[in-house]
Amino acid sequence: MLLARTPEPPYTAVIFSSTRTDGDHGYAAMAAEMERLAAQQPGYLGIEAARDEHIAVTVSYWRDEAAARDWKHVAAHVVAQRRGREHWYTDYRVRIATVHRQYAMSDSPDFV
Amino acid sequence: MLLARTPEPPYTAVIFSSTRTDGDHGYAAMAAEMERLAAQQPGYLGIEAARDEHIAVTVSYWRDEAAARDWKHVAAHVVAQRRGREHWYTDYRVRIATVHRQYAMSDSPDFV
Repeated sequence: MLLARTPEPPYTAVIFSSTRTDGDHGYAAMAAEMERLAAQQPGYLGIEAARDEHIAVTVSYWRDEAAARDWKHVAAHVVAQRRGREHWYTDYRVRIATVHRQYAMSDSPDFV
Repeated sequence: MLLARTPEPPYTAVIFSSTRTDGDHGYAAMAAEMERLAAQQPGYLGIEAARDEHIAVTVSYWRDEAAARDWKHVAAHVVAQRRGREHWYTDYRVRIATVHRQYAMSDSPDFV
């Protein structure tokens, strides 16, 4: 399941966009482990992540901002954040947003 | 510039996540043209897009929801949306959100 099956809005989206250093340096394994851990957090609704050679964009969805904040403070995730700043990222942005509307391809009037 | 230099929140984020059909079918050229056109729209603040073999996640940032809606209705973009449903996407989600907090790697207490 690559696209998240989120419930009716409102809910919280955390948009994490980053540029990377060259090479993997254990990044892929840590990213997979963080996705696995996030999915066990209370209030987790889903995640969508794409990475190419230039940039990674990961959006995680949460029941509310408190659930997103709890995930930010989970110990293993804090370690990953620090390692990220030291080894993996040349820059990143985190944006916390409230989703208030959504639609899917199947909602389109010309969808067959 | 791969990461968007967005102003102080609040502003609007449009999170567009999609899964793709195999092959390009003119997708890359159209995506580049849409990014070029979007940047000319009033209220455009930036875009962050990553694509891998499984999924594409594109987040565009707008001054407000009206600016995002205007872009949705620009004629060339409407054509691209229809072609997308016909040729490129196996599924997609669009989520409209209000960003109310942001920070960057350089804001971290252990950033050196």
